[in-house]
Amino acid sequence: MSSSAVAYARQNYPRFLNELKALLRIPSISTLPEHKGDCRHAAEVLAADLKKIGMENVRLIETGEERGGGHPLVYADWLHAAAKPTALFYGHYDVQPTDPEDEWLSPPFEPTERDGNLYGRGTCDDKGQVVAQVKALESLLAGNGALPINVRVLFEGEEEVGGEGIEAFVASKPPELKSDFALVSDTELFAPGLPTLCVGLRGMIYTELEVRGAKTDLHSGMYGGAAPNPFVSLAQILARLKDENGHILIPGFYDDIIPPSPEELAAWQSLPFDEEQYRINEVGSKQLVGEAGYSVLERTWARPTVDVHGIPGGFIGAGAKTVIPAKAVAKVSMRLVPGMTPAKAFAQYKSYVEKIAPAGVDVEIRLIHSGDPCLVRVDNPYIKAATTALHEVWGKDTVFIRSGGSIPIVGDFDRHLGIPSVMMGFGLPDDNIHAPNEKFHLKNFELGIESLIRFLEEAGR
Amino acid sequence: MSSSAVAYARQNYPRFLNELKALLRIPSISTLPEHKGDCRHAAEVLAADLKKIGMENVRLIETGEERGGGHPLVYADWLHAAAKPTALFYGHYDVQPTDPEDEWLSPPFEPTERDGNLYGRGTCDDKGQVVAQVKALESLLAGNGALPINVRVLFEGEEEVGGEGIEAFVASKPPELKSDFALVSDTELFAPGLPTLCVGLRGMIYTELEVRGAKTDLHSGMYGGAAPNPFVSLAQILARLKDENGHILIPGFYDDIIPPSPEELAAWQSLPFDEEQYRINEVGSKQLVGEAGYSVLERTWARPTVDVHGIPGGFIGAGAKTVIPAKAVAKVSMRLVPGMTPAKAFAQYKSYVEKIAPAGVDVEIRLIHSGDPCLVRVDNPYIKAATTALHEVWGKDTVFIRSGGSIPIVGDFDRHLGIPSVMMGFGLPDDNIHAPNEKFHLKNFELGIESLIRFLEEAGR
Repeated sequence: MSSSAVAYARQNYPRFLNELKALLRIPSISTLPEHKGDCRHAAEVLAADLKKIGMENVRLIETGEERGGGHPLVYADWLHAAAKPTALFYGHYDVQPTDPEDEWLSPPFEPTERDGNLYGRGTCDDKGQVVAQVKALESLLAGNGALPINVRVLFEGEEEVGGEGIEAFVASKPPELKSDFALVSDTELFAPGLPTLCVGLRGMIYTELEVRGAKTDLHSGMYGGAAPNPFVSLAQILARLKDENGHILIPGFYDDIIPPSPEELAAWQSLPFDEEQYRINEVGSKQLVGEAGYSVLERTWARPTVDVHGIPGGFIGAGAKTVIPAKAVAKVSMRLVPGMTPAKAFAQYKSYVEKIAPAGVDVEIRLIHSGDPCLVRVDNPYIKAATTALHEVWGKDTVFIRSGGSIPIVGDFDRHLGIPSVMMGFGLPDDNIHAPNEKFHLKNFELGIESLIRFLEEAGR
Repeated sequence: MSSSAVAYARQNYPRFLNELKALLRIPSISTLPEHKGDCRHAAEVLAADLKKIGMENVRLIETGEERGGGHPLVYADWLHAAAKPTALFYGHYDVQPTDPEDEWLSPPFEPTERDGNLYGRGTCDDKGQVVAQVKALESLLAGNGALPINVRVLFEGEEEVGGEGIEAFVASKPPELKSDFALVSDTELFAPGLPTLCVGLRGMIYTELEVRGAKTDLHSGMYGGAAPNPFVSLAQILARLKDENGHILIPGFYDDIIPPSPEELAAWQSLPFDEEQYRINEVGSKQLVGEAGYSVLERTWARPTVDVHGIPGGFIGAGAKTVIPAKAVAKVSMRLVPGMTPAKAFAQYKSYVEKIAPAGVDVEIRLIHSGDPCLVRVDNPYIKAATTALHEVWGKDTVFIRSGGSIPIVGDFDRHLGIPSVMMGFGLPDDNIHAPNEKFHLKNFELGIESLIRFLEEAGR
């Protein structure tokens, strides 16, 4: 597996790491309007680096003009490998918010090395993986003088807020996205040292469920017992979305699910996974929850869910305020699995909530964003090239897993461009993405770059 | 009903109103630490005025040293009416927070006259009524040269946060509180122009119910379906506190209730009250809620309640964050009625919640504050003096009502000082206390002062 590109990468890791740290210091939180400038800054830094390493046609593509301007896409290409396939590299430079701020052991935007890991917001999700892609390209261009296949790069800055901009761009089927497959680096290894390809993703709908009672906030002493309390009504609705065994109560919600094949279920059973260790080390709750009769992997990869993320409104300050708030809002999302569609799931949910809404209140349900679930066929040539490359770098056979998360762009690439995705990512299950103390294993940054180099070399054979 | 004091009051209303406005401009929000200085400022303004009008022994009494210092009490007395009874005047200078700020038509701390009302936070609850007390004393001292009975004044600044400071002071039975009855001005007329004495109050417990799941926030894609969601669990608990007909499900919660007498219930039925008008004008919801088989007045005066005021924790920003929060907290209060005690109600609630807590989460219930319910006997001589005075000023017989709210100090006066309270207040049911656009009817400020003057004159006969 010696290649000039790999040798180049090994010589340049310290600089690669410093460049990653510089990108991590930019607080590109896409959901917070005050960080809009930071998102653009991160895009500009990536574009400048792509240009510097020899990629061509580098530019920012503006998005979301109709909504007052979104975060830009970063585009680049290198198309001089005649008669070779074309890969579309995808990653995202935006990150999640950092609350609860006080639980971080080191500042979220000051990347810090501890115990072989790099801590900071975006280290794993997804700047560490984006930079691994760029540095693989740099190593190939600098070490070999050329890329083994044609490459287009498309990074986005709205992955954490629904990806509206990139979806619109991809849906327009622009000529600069004509490719044979996508390389998506936003997933994780199943276990440390175990090469992994993700071949299935859950979809999702993210909604706001608003309940309104009185026309204005009321004193709970004067009006308690006669005025509707939207928080109580909201709790009654939420409590009827799933039962205490985790079974979703929305009529028809499970009807269209395509279950995993017996072969896939058997492969999952042979994965190195211990539910009790997972409970203790990753979740840390006194017990796990969810649907009876399904393993944890089935529940998180192949079964739909309902989760509540927060309930804005009302009095949330310190101390006591005796108010019956006029309204309450719950942020509710549902993960969807192959066979389900966001449109049908949302319609079923909306119709059910309107039916069970308690007396005295009005309900309104807003769809914030959605994404299709997806499954990748494992017999395509790019998956085969990937498994060959991964075996060389990691010394082990690749495991095929799914992810419970949603990468809506994978569905968009399939639907609009007709190309499959190779989801090759190097996070670890305990990397705390979306949570305090997010990290990226430093060794995985290095082996990730090597894996990407070797994958392109295999794909170009 | 001509009296020199009433004549003095009528000549000085414009100045009285200006003095009230000056007090209203001080944002003495007791629950917010950043307004601690404002609370003291309000207390100092009241103390200075009490001194100026001729009250004696005026001073601030510090509270809450054990909790780092609370808001001070304001004390004053005038004890030169030999062989006459002694009244203990009570009111509070602290106010509720102002959120939601954007619903105020004029700034909460810039008192504004519109349509015969004075708008602003604290106009009705309770600065308008406190100032009415002070100006009644001023009118008697300046117009008659003396008070008709002995008077002690005790104003507090922690009514909206549980009244811990005044309760400790009253519980110590200090000699300066030795009195024959309390005059509490923190209630309302049943209807415009209808003289009203409040003779019953609900008690309350105000709690925080915390639910904890995973050890840290988790990604809802990766962990959804296996990790407990504290918001969902909290909703399941809240939904089981009362059923959809408003019946509280906590075992034993109704056992000790002393229902109103048939006479009291009959009197309530003759009050000018229309449930449909109340729904439209005061509540503004599409229908009223609550226990079947009880009128609105029974449900709000003589039945316990459960209300939820807000659910801090989780993601409450704009947009979407796909997190399973590690914990969720609900601010939950219950109103209690005669026969119930805060200690027993809290114990029943806590034990029930611990029993019904869903699998996978830990629950913790914290008592923030509490107050006893109370009933006043209507055959005491001070109630009789009050009804005589009110008839002279308002030209109508007094109606005896209860309030659904809690004034814990009334129970404290009874329990620790052994004195009854005359709850004579001049708010109106639509004064928006604890809500945006709080107001006080200007005519009620004037007639309130006259009523207090005449009441003291009657009590001194």
